[in-house]
Amino acid sequence: MSIPRAAYPPPFNTTRASHAVLTVKDLGASRAFYVDAMGFVVSEEDGEAIYLRGLEEACHHSLVLKRCDGPPVCERIGLRVYTEDDLERAKSHFERAGLPARFVDVPHHGRTLHVADAVGTPLELCATMTTMPRMVVQFQAFKGPCPHRIDHFQVVTPEVQRACDFYAEMGFRLSEYIAVDGTDDLVFVFLQRKGNPHDIVFAGGAGPRLHHVAFTVPDAQHIIHACDVAGSFGFGTHLEHGPARHGPGHALFAYFRDPDGHRVELFNTHYQMMDIENEPVRWNLSYMRNRPWGLPPRAKWFREASPFAGIAPTEPARPGAPFTLEKFLLEAQ
Amino acid sequence: MSIPRAAYPPPFNTTRASHAVLTVKDLGASRAFYVDAMGFVVSEEDGEAIYLRGLEEACHHSLVLKRCDGPPVCERIGLRVYTEDDLERAKSHFERAGLPARFVDVPHHGRTLHVADAVGTPLELCATMTTMPRMVVQFQAFKGPCPHRIDHFQVVTPEVQRACDFYAEMGFRLSEYIAVDGTDDLVFVFLQRKGNPHDIVFAGGAGPRLHHVAFTVPDAQHIIHACDVAGSFGFGTHLEHGPARHGPGHALFAYFRDPDGHRVELFNTHYQMMDIENEPVRWNLSYMRNRPWGLPPRAKWFREASPFAGIAPTEPARPGAPFTLEKFLLEAQ
Amino acid sequence: MSIPRAAYPPPFNTTRASHAVLTVKDLGASRAFYVDAMGFVVSEEDGEAIYLRGLEEACHHSLVLKRCDGPPVCERIGLRVYTEDDLERAKSHFERAGLPARFVDVPHHGRTLHVADAVGTPLELCATMTTMPRMVVQFQAFKGPCPHRIDHFQVVTPEVQRACDFYAEMGFRLSEYIAVDGTDDLVFVFLQRKGNPHDIVFAGGAGPRLHHVAFTVPDAQHIIHACDVAGSFGFGTHLEHGPARHGPGHALFAYFRDPDGHRVELFNTHYQMMDIENEPVRWNLSYMRNRPWGLPPRAKWFREASPFAGIAPTEPARPGAPFTLEKFLLEAQ
Amino acid sequence: MSIPRAAYPPPFNTTRASHAVLTVKDLGASRAFYVDAMGFVVSEEDGEAIYLRGLEEACHHSLVLKRCDGPPVCERIGLRVYTEDDLERAKSHFERAGLPARFVDVPHHGRTLHVADAVGTPLELCATMTTMPRMVVQFQAFKGPCPHRIDHFQVVTPEVQRACDFYAEMGFRLSEYIAVDGTDDLVFVFLQRKGNPHDIVFAGGAGPRLHHVAFTVPDAQHIIHACDVAGSFGFGTHLEHGPARHGPGHALFAYFRDPDGHRVELFNTHYQMMDIENEPVRWNLSYMRNRPWGLPPRAKWFREASPFAGIAPTEPARPGAPFTLEKFLLEAQ
Repeated sequence: MSIPRAAYPPPFNTTRASHAVLTVKDLGASRAFYVDAMGFVVSEEDGEAIYLRGLEEACHHSLVLKRCDGPPVCERIGLRVYTEDDLERAKSHFERAGLPARFVDVPHHGRTLHVADAVGTPLELCATMTTMPRMVVQFQAFKGPCPHRIDHFQVVTPEVQRACDFYAEMGFRLSEYIAVDGTDDLVFVFLQRKGNPHDIVFAGGAGPRLHHVAFTVPDAQHIIHACDVAGSFGFGTHLEHGPARHGPGHALFAYFRDPDGHRVELFNTHYQMMDIENEPVRWNLSYMRNRPWGLPPRAKWFREASPFAGIAPTEPARPGAPFTLEKFLLEAQ
Repeated sequence: MSIPRAAYPPPFNTTRASHAVLTVKDLGASRAFYVDAMGFVVSEEDGEAIYLRGLEEACHHSLVLKRCDGPPVCERIGLRVYTEDDLERAKSHFERAGLPARFVDVPHHGRTLHVADAVGTPLELCATMTTMPRMVVQFQAFKGPCPHRIDHFQVVTPEVQRACDFYAEMGFRLSEYIAVDGTDDLVFVFLQRKGNPHDIVFAGGAGPRLHHVAFTVPDAQHIIHACDVAGSFGFGTHLEHGPARHGPGHALFAYFRDPDGHRVELFNTHYQMMDIENEPVRWNLSYMRNRPWGLPPRAKWFREASPFAGIAPTEPARPGAPFTLEKFLLEAQ
Repeated sequence: MSIPRAAYPPPFNTTRASHAVLTVKDLGASRAFYVDAMGFVVSEEDGEAIYLRGLEEACHHSLVLKRCDGPPVCERIGLRVYTEDDLERAKSHFERAGLPARFVDVPHHGRTLHVADAVGTPLELCATMTTMPRMVVQFQAFKGPCPHRIDHFQVVTPEVQRACDFYAEMGFRLSEYIAVDGTDDLVFVFLQRKGNPHDIVFAGGAGPRLHHVAFTVPDAQHIIHACDVAGSFGFGTHLEHGPARHGPGHALFAYFRDPDGHRVELFNTHYQMMDIENEPVRWNLSYMRNRPWGLPPRAKWFREASPFAGIAPTEPARPGAPFTLEKFLLEAQ
Repeated sequence: MSIPRAAYPPPFNTTRASHAVLTVKDLGASRAFYVDAMGFVVSEEDGEAIYLRGLEEACHHSLVLKRCDGPPVCERIGLRVYTEDDLERAKSHFERAGLPARFVDVPHHGRTLHVADAVGTPLELCATMTTMPRMVVQFQAFKGPCPHRIDHFQVVTPEVQRACDFYAEMGFRLSEYIAVDGTDDLVFVFLQRKGNPHDIVFAGGAGPRLHHVAFTVPDAQHIIHACDVAGSFGFGTHLEHGPARHGPGHALFAYFRDPDGHRVELFNTHYQMMDIENEPVRWNLSYMRNRPWGLPPRAKWFREASPFAGIAPTEPARPGAPFTLEKFLLEAQ
């Protein structure tokens, strides 16, 4: 294992996780989940797509749902860079790394760069979006869990170390990581640009696949209310894991599966991580047997993830043996 | 099945669930759990016992922990009646039912009546206790989940119908109940005197045994904070079930096991149930497969309970087949 | 001063504060306030009236708004008794006291008794109402402060002692009271039947007039959310007092004025007060200068109240000199 | 008025508001306020100083209290820069602006630069501090409002435009501002580096003086709990303004005065402001008469502030006429 240091100054200025583009089979079902039950704000919708944002977001979208006929996938995850110049520098950076990057037009974005990262995750980078009103004090529009903003992605990959190195070269700082006890094998890496624990997380497994997109909610009680409102709208069984508290990152969380199986995490906000003296926090994998409270995730939380469009996942060299709820119950008998 | 009507006026005026008397092996371990982690107020303690109350309680205790050398048990559960005269009338009532009742001296109680109910649950009834300061706005003393007051007991018995009939004759109203689908078999009965859903619950199983004692917390967020603080004090694995929301009764809850295995429920407050036109709410047992959200309880939540002192539990004629977390996972595979 | 003891057994069994009947000039404006901003559930409405209930209430209404052309008034406040027989006994009780009582038909009520209490407050008593679904876990219908149930009324009267004595004879217990320091003059009396601090409060001043109707909200955060949502709906200036914490009763509260000037209190739930050994808590009036935190109420909170229909208020013999926000600021200069 | 654009790239990389150094007359009284009532974590203390941090902070201190014999002052406010190199570049930047800057040794800091900004605010900049354990999930240590981290300072100055221009040249972005209606006069400017609305605010008035230091709390309910716990510890009258909600910045807040009169704001977390297309939000000063809900601040909130050590405040050319609670009540009569 080597824990890379973030390039500083970075080759280009990535500012934050921006948005995810998911395909779904039935926009009406997705709307019932994301808008009615989860409380997202609709920025725009038609028969082909719904653009959603959180209550405090002034950008056009942090979640795009596109109608598809085939199996649901994640088309791309989006990152924000600060300036147009950063986009140019990003293009050069990726090309130097042998990764083809091209500018494309994306509705409601400024110029947008399409590229895949070193482990194959399809990215889109832009410096600007159409602005929308922040609804942060439009309390009459607050519903259910009141998602406030996108925070991070989790991507599954068989090459966690490679992903970690690649993002460190892009200027991402490693805030926390999980390694196999007594070894150098990275299992989870939490990488960030915006000054809290993560903009993107890579976890070991067959990939690249999108494990989840995470949105913040304001208060601890919104996590509970998310579950209650989901139940009232018939999405109670879509709660897959939680409410419980993470070890790494420390957030209170609940994971839901949307009607197409895409996974969404709601969690409350994070600690700040901005100082140069803050070293990455190591966790041993065995910690996963020893969480502060709450049951371990079910096996499917580890196993299932959204494919990226047109990308066949690669299996890891050694399959993981995560500590699942099923194992926990067997051992407890 | 017959759903009995509450005797009105009642033969004597029971006002509320009052307290539980539990034996424990190590008062220090119990104190760490109940006082440090759970936030109960100590009314009195010595080498033999700890008397605890909730933050809003003006009575001396709602939970008594007595040091014992043998296996931990529940000695008795306590009910409050309104006046001394009600105690006399209670004695007559029980004796008419063939249940021996005798007055005893109990520290910090007024005159106290010891009796067992029709299904063998050892009760103690009193009309008064030593008063203590309500700590309800002594916010400097608020800790962890901030338990505010005792609310109810759950007792396991093979004779749920009999218990239901007996308490109805004592003037308890049935607020909700669970029956086997399409049959008359009562599985859970929620009985109350104080105007919310329950003072005492009887659930089918080998008994009489004490399933749990329940205490209120003020806000939804205290249920989460209970888990967090329990985790910080090393009691994270003592969380047995929850946080989740009940069907019957509708409360948000978390169940913890204390160091001796006694089960404590924390939940937020209940709806009011005071009007004569409010009919008992029926739930079919199959509902238990269909909760609003959250995982079913583990098998041990159904199986394990505290014995009452000196009382050998009787098995039910037909064993139950509760829908456990273990079954749920098997079926989900 | 004499602190009366509650008659026990009471002459008839009053169970709780039930409902208020208010007249309003514009049902649309009232709806915007009570339904959109405050989150009440509509049980029924037409061009003449709106019947509202809280989210957990299974009765048809706890608040009735009737369209009127004249100045807005409170027609009556309602109390629940337990049985039809209690209604008959109530009639006899009032008539023995020289207070004419007559049975009337009121929509959605069982037989209803109209009477005025000893200080002229127009009451209506009933034993039953049309039942409605409890919305307590219909989380999709939760809005704004999420009022859960009616809790109490506050009535202004020049005859606080007389009111206190009269309700004690009806079986109401005095839970807390405020008296002028070093004297026997009662200024506020908190009287209850349902086992928490109050069903009806009498406060000194020109009366009888209705000072406010109070509804519970589940959590402390709902008091804040009430203010936020009121602000979003243009009712921010309708917040008259709070958020702050009461001395007597200890609840966290916010007072709003509705579009017709009727005052509504939202507060979180109360301590339980059911035991015979609980003595009334005395507060000296000077306490009002010494609240735990927060500013004193503005003069209009003390001065203004809703008239009862057709009843001219009587001034007190000695005008009060409440400690207002205005006085506080003058003294602080 | 001119609304300056943030220099990009900045002359040196300031990352965030870091800490404040206050002098106090009685460390015991300060400890009772900050540690017992406010819930700060003690990093170090002796007879001369107490070093405090919030529950999630991994740095040694965000608040330093030094014992003094004279009148209490703010010695300096601290900013973090990212690297040692940024410190060197900062020194050059200030010197080019004619502002003397010198390196000093400060306990628990890396090399520290002392300088005053263009309006005279005494600053200290450092790139590193001694690290301390984050207490973010040490829930057993959570007390009262549970302050999590420092967020921003508010400084009073007669030269708001000049301060705004100076910090924009340092790379601070203007997120929101208040200007006199129909004019170019800046009254409040909210400037930030860390991606939320503010690291430093300048407000018009006699200065430079420190108006307040602001710390985040996790949930809305902690603002209420802050008041409750302050009341229990005898600091109820130290609540100066709130709980209420800000217009600019949108946060829920409560302002307390410490035993020496230094002002502390507790508020819940902010929206994210990281994208280049986000323009500064203009508010007209008249908005201050039109807040979403809650009373205006008392005159002393506008008038009083902590002097900086050894710096005589300069009066503004034109005195302000803030809309105070006192004015509001006069107008409302």
